[in-house]
Amino acid sequence: MISNSFDINSKGHLTVGGVDSVDLANKYGTPMYVVDEDAVRTNCALFRESIKEHYEGNGLCVYASKAFCCKEICRVIAEENCGLDVVSGGEIYTALKAGFPMENVFFHGNNKTYDEIKLALESNVGRIIVDNLTELKLLNALCEELKREANIYFRVKPGVDAHTHDFIRTGQIDSKFGFAYETGEALDAIRESMQYERINLIGLHCHIGSQIFDIEPFVTAANIMIDFMKEAKDKLGVTLSELDLGGGFGIKYTDSDTPVPYESFMGPVASKVKALCKEYGLSVPKIIIEPGRSIIAPAGATLYTVGNVKTIPDVRTYVSIDGGMGDNPRYILYGSKYEILCANKASEPKDTTVTLAGKCCESGDLIQENAPLQKVEAGDIVAVLATGAYNYSMASNYNRIPRLPVVFVRNKQDRLVIRRETYEDIISCDL
Amino acid sequence: MISNSFDINSKGHLTVGGVDSVDLANKYGTPMYVVDEDAVRTNCALFRESIKEHYEGNGLCVYASKAFCCKEICRVIAEENCGLDVVSGGEIYTALKAGFPMENVFFHGNNKTYDEIKLALESNVGRIIVDNLTELKLLNALCEELKREANIYFRVKPGVDAHTHDFIRTGQIDSKFGFAYETGEALDAIRESMQYERINLIGLHCHIGSQIFDIEPFVTAANIMIDFMKEAKDKLGVTLSELDLGGGFGIKYTDSDTPVPYESFMGPVASKVKALCKEYGLSVPKIIIEPGRSIIAPAGATLYTVGNVKTIPDVRTYVSIDGGMGDNPRYILYGSKYEILCANKASEPKDTTVTLAGKCCESGDLIQENAPLQKVEAGDIVAVLATGAYNYSMASNYNRIPRLPVVFVRNKQDRLVIRRETYEDIISCDL
Repeated sequence: MISNSFDINSKGHLTVGGVDSVDLANKYGTPMYVVDEDAVRTNCALFRESIKEHYEGNGLCVYASKAFCCKEICRVIAEENCGLDVVSGGEIYTALKAGFPMENVFFHGNNKTYDEIKLALESNVGRIIVDNLTELKLLNALCEELKREANIYFRVKPGVDAHTHDFIRTGQIDSKFGFAYETGEALDAIRESMQYERINLIGLHCHIGSQIFDIEPFVTAANIMIDFMKEAKDKLGVTLSELDLGGGFGIKYTDSDTPVPYESFMGPVASKVKALCKEYGLSVPKIIIEPGRSIIAPAGATLYTVGNVKTIPDVRTYVSIDGGMGDNPRYILYGSKYEILCANKASEPKDTTVTLAGKCCESGDLIQENAPLQKVEAGDIVAVLATGAYNYSMASNYNRIPRLPVVFVRNKQDRLVIRRETYEDIISCDL
Repeated sequence: MISNSFDINSKGHLTVGGVDSVDLANKYGTPMYVVDEDAVRTNCALFRESIKEHYEGNGLCVYASKAFCCKEICRVIAEENCGLDVVSGGEIYTALKAGFPMENVFFHGNNKTYDEIKLALESNVGRIIVDNLTELKLLNALCEELKREANIYFRVKPGVDAHTHDFIRTGQIDSKFGFAYETGEALDAIRESMQYERINLIGLHCHIGSQIFDIEPFVTAANIMIDFMKEAKDKLGVTLSELDLGGGFGIKYTDSDTPVPYESFMGPVASKVKALCKEYGLSVPKIIIEPGRSIIAPAGATLYTVGNVKTIPDVRTYVSIDGGMGDNPRYILYGSKYEILCANKASEPKDTTVTLAGKCCESGDLIQENAPLQKVEAGDIVAVLATGAYNYSMASNYNRIPRLPVVFVRNKQDRLVIRRETYEDIISCDL
């Protein structure tokens, strides 16, 4: 199994967090998502403890809620003493309604609106990560209007290419995000910020990509960022005390993925940061990391019921399930690979090769192509593993299909954390 | 302008259906969708009248609601004496709540669930288009359970390749949809259906693709389907009286698209159908067509406000707007081309080349790359044209961003038909 969240019980059924997935499918209906909350907490702890170990606790693990956001995950993250990375007013609102400690909320985004920045200031988010000068001016105007101060980072493009998929490569200069380091744009931004009394520049942020399987790019990015901190001090007399290195820690979607153990990232990065700070005569900054996918993706699965199996001789076999691109748009978006299995025949051999097709009225609505699977028939439960991230969060109502419920499993007890949408929900904005 | 719905007024502002788009943006806020209802009605009329002309009215134009579905569009389609193609329980529910005449509803899909088929039977949808034998058996069982009859078509793969994009090519044998004609599978399905007393096989359906710019594939498909009707009569003594040729009529997204005028499709298809029926001694079947995109896409636009303009020397200029892949996922999905313009500077020359970037926390969240645009700055309104189809219907709450309102314009009067989502809506399923 691709993560510890999944196993097979004596009935030959897939378990998630130790709970029989077939029982879950019967109890909640399919399609549905299930998340092993114990694994989420373990993953938070791995990152949190590695910061404690390598930075003597001078840092914070901040969960990137774009991966999966709802009130309950905010509560779990708060209990794990982690921060929350939000990218919109909707995510700030969710954190507020979940009672999340707002001083540990980090507000990102390349185009925050007036209303969003206002909400952020009024709800006292801990840090606002400023993306561009238009935003800096808008933020300052709002600080004046509301008589408040803002603690900010600048998002910097360190120019590191983490050798990942085009869609998810964000650290290089050709990005909609942030200020370029290499052109002097980032230094100019610091200079500009010095004139604003209500804006406190606390640190810097960078994010070099997603689903990264090497430690080296993180070390390189940290190196560049510390160099830049030195430059800011030398040229502008500005001391920056926090460094946010973003996320992008790769996970295992299939056996061909070879992720680095989460606890291995901080050591080499910390060594580099500490050595450079000593060399440059800088205080070691507080280190922030922002894992999202790596915390939640491997802990989740989607359960579907097979509706029809269509074998086209000499072509392929389509297994149609009761969900699709509406609940998992990552295959049609990126061709993302997932491990699939028959939850009620999990101990049988995967001796057929199938294309898992969704029920949307679109030929491209596929979840996987040419994937090994047990021999299945109508009524079987098919599980897609490692769907905890970017599935619910990217879900649509395409074809007016209701979005799925999410069930958390903790200590082998299941509970609903997001209910299934109803048809009435779907038409609720129709006049 | 790429469709008659768009023009420029004396202020140099883009108009949609004759209404100043800048006024709409001010009134409803951005981002928002606007649809020229007059154009929707004109498009319905073009298809409807061409059926009247070439088939003496023995046919029906059926709007494919997956392109854009809400209660108000159902009401408009009903007023235009068109039918409704639905693909899910949610779309059936919407039609019911809009008071749509259910006898003109056509229910499609490759994996209809038990609950959906039950809802379809209980709400007396006019035709159920059966995709596979599992579904046929399920439908029959439900007819027995509910003591009802079902009027059905079979979905047939005619083996026609309409030379379009991989994602939207659906008529060939390698498809999750339908029964293959060439392998005899479709004929076997007819034979199987003859044993079910409560199931009335009325006709056949095919769909050869999307965004098709030639008439020839439709003629070829019609030819194959009439051949098959003859075969069904000759070999099984089954008379099929209706033929649904699906949709796929191409529209003009940009100047490089060269669509066929809508009224030109029916003539050549009707000639072929009539000639063959005469030759084969068959009655000319009632003809159904199912345009979706071609009715609604060219009538719609999305209005955004520019937040930030980021010029990266020697690389490109990112224009960040207050929407993105959440409201228009077609660029990140398919690389779809759109015409963009500055609504409040529509008469100025498009003398810059920009990448229109969304506000989602994802590098791939772009609406267009390297597209010509007027010189814009923060606060300007940017319009993306021809977004009436597969934008609202595919929209997500990624990053927990609320979905956009939809405004219809008729006789130069605007009215809200879908309200904007609130943050409270977004968390409404969170426990």
